[in-house]
Amino acid sequence: MLRTHTCGQLNISNLGETVTLCGWVQKSRDLGGTTFIDVRDRYGLTQLVLNTESDAGLREAGRELGREFVIKVTGKVLERSNKNTKIPTGGIEIAVTELEVLNAAKIPPFLIEDETDGGEELRAKYRYLDLRRNPIRNNLVLRHKMAQEIRRYLSDLDFIEVETPVLIKSTPEGARDFVVPSRMNAGEFYALPQSPQTFKQLLMVSGFDRYFQIVKCFRDEDLRADRQPEFTQIDCELSFITQEDILNIFEGLTRHLFRNVKNLELGDFPRMQYADAMRLYGSDKPDTRFGMQFVEVSDIVKGKNFGVFDNAELVVGINAKGCANYTRKQIDELTEWLKRPQIGATGLIYARHNEDGTIKSSVDKFFNEEELAKWQAAFETEPGDLILLLAGQTDKVRKQLNELRLEIGSRLGLRDKNKFSPLWVLDFPLLEWDEETGRYHAMHHPFTSPKPEDIALLDTDPKNVRANAYDLVINGTEIGGGSIRIHDRELQSLMFKHLGFSAEEAQKQFGFLMDAFEYGAPPHGGIAFGFDRLASIFAGLDSIRDVIAFPKNNSGRDVMIDSPSTIAEAQMNELKIKTVVS
Amino acid sequence: MLRTHTCGQLNISNLGETVTLCGWVQKSRDLGGTTFIDVRDRYGLTQLVLNTESDAGLREAGRELGREFVIKVTGKVLERSNKNTKIPTGGIEIAVTELEVLNAAKIPPFLIEDETDGGEELRAKYRYLDLRRNPIRNNLVLRHKMAQEIRRYLSDLDFIEVETPVLIKSTPEGARDFVVPSRMNAGEFYALPQSPQTFKQLLMVSGFDRYFQIVKCFRDEDLRADRQPEFTQIDCELSFITQEDILNIFEGLTRHLFRNVKNLELGDFPRMQYADAMRLYGSDKPDTRFGMQFVEVSDIVKGKNFGVFDNAELVVGINAKGCANYTRKQIDELTEWLKRPQIGATGLIYARHNEDGTIKSSVDKFFNEEELAKWQAAFETEPGDLILLLAGQTDKVRKQLNELRLEIGSRLGLRDKNKFSPLWVLDFPLLEWDEETGRYHAMHHPFTSPKPEDIALLDTDPKNVRANAYDLVINGTEIGGGSIRIHDRELQSLMFKHLGFSAEEAQKQFGFLMDAFEYGAPPHGGIAFGFDRLASIFAGLDSIRDVIAFPKNNSGRDVMIDSPSTIAEAQMNELKIKTVVS
Repeated sequence: MLRTHTCGQLNISNLGETVTLCGWVQKSRDLGGTTFIDVRDRYGLTQLVLNTESDAGLREAGRELGREFVIKVTGKVLERSNKNTKIPTGGIEIAVTELEVLNAAKIPPFLIEDETDGGEELRAKYRYLDLRRNPIRNNLVLRHKMAQEIRRYLSDLDFIEVETPVLIKSTPEGARDFVVPSRMNAGEFYALPQSPQTFKQLLMVSGFDRYFQIVKCFRDEDLRADRQPEFTQIDCELSFITQEDILNIFEGLTRHLFRNVKNLELGDFPRMQYADAMRLYGSDKPDTRFGMQFVEVSDIVKGKNFGVFDNAELVVGINAKGCANYTRKQIDELTEWLKRPQIGATGLIYARHNEDGTIKSSVDKFFNEEELAKWQAAFETEPGDLILLLAGQTDKVRKQLNELRLEIGSRLGLRDKNKFSPLWVLDFPLLEWDEETGRYHAMHHPFTSPKPEDIALLDTDPKNVRANAYDLVINGTEIGGGSIRIHDRELQSLMFKHLGFSAEEAQKQFGFLMDAFEYGAPPHGGIAFGFDRLASIFAGLDSIRDVIAFPKNNSGRDVMIDSPSTIAEAQMNELKIKTVVS
Repeated sequence: MLRTHTCGQLNISNLGETVTLCGWVQKSRDLGGTTFIDVRDRYGLTQLVLNTESDAGLREAGRELGREFVIKVTGKVLERSNKNTKIPTGGIEIAVTELEVLNAAKIPPFLIEDETDGGEELRAKYRYLDLRRNPIRNNLVLRHKMAQEIRRYLSDLDFIEVETPVLIKSTPEGARDFVVPSRMNAGEFYALPQSPQTFKQLLMVSGFDRYFQIVKCFRDEDLRADRQPEFTQIDCELSFITQEDILNIFEGLTRHLFRNVKNLELGDFPRMQYADAMRLYGSDKPDTRFGMQFVEVSDIVKGKNFGVFDNAELVVGINAKGCANYTRKQIDELTEWLKRPQIGATGLIYARHNEDGTIKSSVDKFFNEEELAKWQAAFETEPGDLILLLAGQTDKVRKQLNELRLEIGSRLGLRDKNKFSPLWVLDFPLLEWDEETGRYHAMHHPFTSPKPEDIALLDTDPKNVRANAYDLVINGTEIGGGSIRIHDRELQSLMFKHLGFSAEEAQKQFGFLMDAFEYGAPPHGGIAFGFDRLASIFAGLDSIRDVIAFPKNNSGRDVMIDSPSTIAEAQMNELKIKTVVS
């Protein structure tokens, strides 16, 4: 090795040893006839000392080192007079006797320090420099540890990691598939998997019993906030199990990870029906770090000649604890915020429960004291609280109030990144009406099984068919979701029929899976976690981008390597394709 | 859970317990009033007993079960009178009291047994059934264990697994790149990585120090024997190391795997110069399970008026121990075999060292007894041995003799699949002349560093520049290869120049890497193992196909899912591409 130790290794027990270190110059400072240099590697920082008295030439060479120069130094470990107790190597320093520059460095375009002065664009372009910074590197070390612990937990439970193919088949459902032209089969394309779903189900048919994979998946979609065209899933599937088994095993995985990676014991994993989540939080992924549940008050508020309420399908609100002191201006701002197109609320009604016990609403001309007392009772307000109400079409108003609840929760400091509140959301609807295509879509995917008692509703009341489907939510973020699958050809065909497939289309696209179901498919189910998201939660980050070594930007571009890019005419000719960009 | 135990779990210690098992009907047989059924899962086989006396209806239901039906049974664990000592559950059987068919099965298209009657095509189409067979499933379990041990070994040595992107940039060098049209960036393409080479080097520039990844890579090439368009690499890179360190660490990894997965202690890892490997074995990946090294005899055999030898650049042969009894017909067949276009030898000269001590050659009219005695001495033959000689242009004749040596080794039973002979091949040439393009190519890749003492030869004698490059060979198969990389911008530019890049092209394609070298790149190097190949060696298989769950065929097709396939016009329109297949 070029070095005897890393820059994070030496301490008082090494006094007197002659050592060789390699690393990057973090900073240097002169103090009289002495130069102090901090040399850095992944493992830590060590202080080097060069002074004129012992070797003037060497000291001069040390003074000429720039930030981020790569050096190799040999010297003796000495005790520091001025100890730095904040770092493990802070008790010692190296009296350098040999210094070699392994590589010079230009001045970096931004500071390689925990707090940097580089903007997002610049850091993306020089990602390899940004990755030198401790906070970013630590995220990836954390991610590595998580992956190790995930594999350990699952392997100990007899799960086998099996690699499924990346070059698979495009499906008409797969409007968001990336496709790959085949040279050997000109005119034909592979697709990159949005998930290994059908393959993991086939592995169950094969009797693998317990499968997992930490695997890259791909989706060519408009990159809304914090999506990546390639992302990583923790993909799992099991045979001969019930939903209850799956919830327990993956609650166990989550606990294991928090315990072994974050040294944290999680509390309960409560379970909530999808319908309740929507009713109480207006979301299928409620942030349960705080309460502030929805209170539906249509019954109380209707019939008082206030058109906004009377014409609404639902009037629902929250109790913003302690917010009665919001000024009119603050409330107006909140109203404007709610009216933005992303949220689209039409107005906000409020009532203050004042410190003097009175209740004062924005609609006092319709609601007298007695009426407002009913509001107080419904929201269980105390003096100082603020009732915020929205009215409108049920689905929309719930969605809007969800945004408002999260906003108020943030303002009240109720969304602590160091608190973790897991929640299972159960019994999702099987189908979801798609306005755009005018037909039902599978809410999870077409392989999710309906609850047996709801199958009859498929014909009469499709939107109320519940699925054996579940999501794991932490702090308002869906980190995993899965279902008990269909393992019966007939039921799978029925499902495709209800999704608008003709029998021929279904056979053409998924015939291999339905055929497989006829050769002895076991009951099975599974779950997939978004690993990027999970890692970002562990790292306390809002974005997944900094738990990914080389992420793409919002346009799906890697600005460091400048990709995607045009390709040579000759290559397109070989692939028998042409671009038709106008 | 649906079951209390697996089918491989119960034994004499469970006697009297009431248990529930789930699995597949392997076979059943009737014996008087009793039906015995073997139920199978991934973990093993358990015998079920149903008899008319205790429950005639149940027994009848049992008789109706077909092969591969998925069942759930409950019953009591009894001691077997007729024990099967070959399987762990062979001491017990289950007296069934409840039987449920979880899924029926059609008659499988081939036998789901260790030895099957299914042809390759049929098994590929029903891969999910082939995967049920023990030998195939065991390969994947083995592969899983190998992956676990690889990760454990490397993580314990401070390697961090980092995921590098799958959607990267195509390069003109990357004629074998799969490309992916981008919808968001119409007219532009990503490429799938043939290896994460540049990214792992950037991680070194970032100070990650020790990186690894078990990662899918892609190459769109004609699938010669036993290649796959997608394959898996164990990809590793280290900073501040020497070649010696890398050889030791990865010799350690290989030993660790053999020890922990195959319970086998490997012997020495000898090291051989590339030049010696070519001279002694005619191959850069010699099978060293047996000797039979080449002997060059040009000096001895030339000048005897035998044109074939006199006009040859090289006359070289092997001593086929104990093969003097080969008949003329056998040798003629061998000669024909050598003349096939794949090998292309023009003729085979031989000499028998007979049991009576005489030496008799196929060219006796040119070589007298005295001359043949020199042959004997050169090849150190003993009575019963056969000298086989080829003559011609050095590179070609070595290649041909390599084939012959392997063939003779196989015939002599010297290539035992249970014997493992590792070898490091060192000091590969940096460059390789490419007849087709009329220029030099990088033998490994353009990032491999030349030996410092050979850099001067780049201008004068490029083909004799040696690289800091090494391959690990086991039993004649290259399982890993790597190099110490260039970490200096100037040297990297020089390298691109010698590979025929203009400065502009080099900057356009690899500017990001060369720029990175200017910001403090540490000395670094690495290695990549072919995981599929390594697993196939561990499994004792000739082909990598059966250590891959869902492999593609020789035309790059997945015949199970019928991929690649055409895609919808609408999807091509969205991607702004057209196929131009005539």
